[in-house]
Amino acid sequence: MTLINKTKNPDHSILAVGSVAFDSIKTPSGTADKILGGSANYFSLSASYFTTLKLVGVVGEDFPSSHFKVLADRGIDTTGLEKAKGKTFHWVGEYGQDLNEAKTIDTQLNVFEHFNPKLPEEYKKAPYLFLANINPELQLDVYHQCERPKFVAADSMNLWINIKKPQLLETLKVVNLLTINEGEAFLLSGKDNIVDAADAIRKMGPKALVVKRGEYGALLFTDNGIFSAPALPLKTVKDPTGAGDTFAGGLIGYLANKGIDKDFAKHEATLREAVIFGCVMASFTVEDFGFSNLLEVNSELMGERYRQFISMTRF
Amino acid sequence: MTLINKTKNPDHSILAVGSVAFDSIKTPSGTADKILGGSANYFSLSASYFTTLKLVGVVGEDFPSSHFKVLADRGIDTTGLEKAKGKTFHWVGEYGQDLNEAKTIDTQLNVFEHFNPKLPEEYKKAPYLFLANINPELQLDVYHQCERPKFVAADSMNLWINIKKPQLLETLKVVNLLTINEGEAFLLSGKDNIVDAADAIRKMGPKALVVKRGEYGALLFTDNGIFSAPALPLKTVKDPTGAGDTFAGGLIGYLANKGIDKDFAKHEATLREAVIFGCVMASFTVEDFGFSNLLEVNSELMGERYRQFISMTRF
Repeated sequence: MTLINKTKNPDHSILAVGSVAFDSIKTPSGTADKILGGSANYFSLSASYFTTLKLVGVVGEDFPSSHFKVLADRGIDTTGLEKAKGKTFHWVGEYGQDLNEAKTIDTQLNVFEHFNPKLPEEYKKAPYLFLANINPELQLDVYHQCERPKFVAADSMNLWINIKKPQLLETLKVVNLLTINEGEAFLLSGKDNIVDAADAIRKMGPKALVVKRGEYGALLFTDNGIFSAPALPLKTVKDPTGAGDTFAGGLIGYLANKGIDKDFAKHEATLREAVIFGCVMASFTVEDFGFSNLLEVNSELMGERYRQFISMTRF
Repeated sequence: MTLINKTKNPDHSILAVGSVAFDSIKTPSGTADKILGGSANYFSLSASYFTTLKLVGVVGEDFPSSHFKVLADRGIDTTGLEKAKGKTFHWVGEYGQDLNEAKTIDTQLNVFEHFNPKLPEEYKKAPYLFLANINPELQLDVYHQCERPKFVAADSMNLWINIKKPQLLETLKVVNLLTINEGEAFLLSGKDNIVDAADAIRKMGPKALVVKRGEYGALLFTDNGIFSAPALPLKTVKDPTGAGDTFAGGLIGYLANKGIDKDFAKHEATLREAVIFGCVMASFTVEDFGFSNLLEVNSELMGERYRQFISMTRF
């Protein structure tokens, strides 16, 4: 896959902060018990196909060394993955026939409840920053610990829009690219039309907005206009958990790989390719439970899917 | 717009059969009372930008001559639009914030209840046939009255899938291209995955299947694979009534304009362009109530929108 440069250059490295968790999942295709999950985990595994990662998060004493190894094997730096007294964050969720909608059965925050990210010294110079979906106050705190991030991307969710909107708005001021679900875009902006919602959100800070639409793909809004990316219609969709975070991993991973800065006007083509790589990575994730399919990816398979997106959209 | 040939050649003419109605509509943007509606009406007005039309339908004695004039002004032949004793079909519907879902308040079938299409002699040689969403027995009957249709397209809906499935399956055997909503594709096929659903439906007869997804665009399935067309994100969406039929009008209108036959393997590029023109025409319709915006269209505006679809999808 010639589009992706092979790089271990620290100038392309991403610092990712978010949750690392156990997920117990039930879907119409089956169940998975206490598998490795969490936004930072999915993001990092996906982005690791594009660049090097520094992970910031917290796990409990019950987090097995085999899971550290999964991350290390993908070249992900876990120096910043704190092991705290107590149990690891555990999410129990279920999907019905509508795989777009997860029903939370149980959330045991455990050590994640008092997560207070502290960046290792060698993390602070990371040029790319991804603030996965956590409390916006922590997102901003991590941003301030960084010395000179050249590109800041973030995700958020309904919960924070509802209970921490002022804090989220503060954080958005320093965010260059926001990824968010369509429903969340309406909630955050107070608009009921996606064009109006994007206009309003882009005025809050992020010059680039990516609206995730699940099986309907994603929309990218920049000063250059709108880019519409489809999702790949798949014969097998077993578990959508982590799709949004692996999407962000492909997206930000590709941007970091290319070394672009936040001057988006110069990088429209790269941004569009990045959105497609987001869709590519998400398409692998949902085909099996948890992150298992994501570990089987390679540049051949990624290239093949990328070309499927080309042939599916050309006219 | 150089893509569309100017033609009044009968070899490109479309015979369209379906409903012609009064619609009374309420949406969050306002209301419209007893405006010209119905599937065959929307289809024909849209397709009239691409080729000549022969309309088959029935209206009541209350149908004003001004409405005949609207159709005639667009070059639509209404010889086959029967004026029967009684009142015109009247649909009363309402949309909430979710504009994808119409709530039917009242359906007065009136003269449409005993609609029994009889083709005028000069209609029978029409090369293109569009069987809009009516009782599948009538669709098949119209097909059999035609002497040598070279391309048969059809639409259907939940109602017929639920109450006339065997008859619909008979009709589908002679259909080359089917347009249908995503939910209807699941219902018709009994599958819960769109790729499986498309495979199953294409085995029922139509070698080309276009799945309409409202604000998320459309998918085209042929032996050549999948084409994904987005919908244009619009700042103003006032009334989605007729969007699906104007979509079909742009789609089949463009195919007829190009004079293609049902040997789809040779016409993939034209089919894809046609799907985009379907999206273009639907985008005009939803911006205002009823068909009013559709009458203001011209080749410049169509060309401009078509180019928006190009710029929105290229990477």
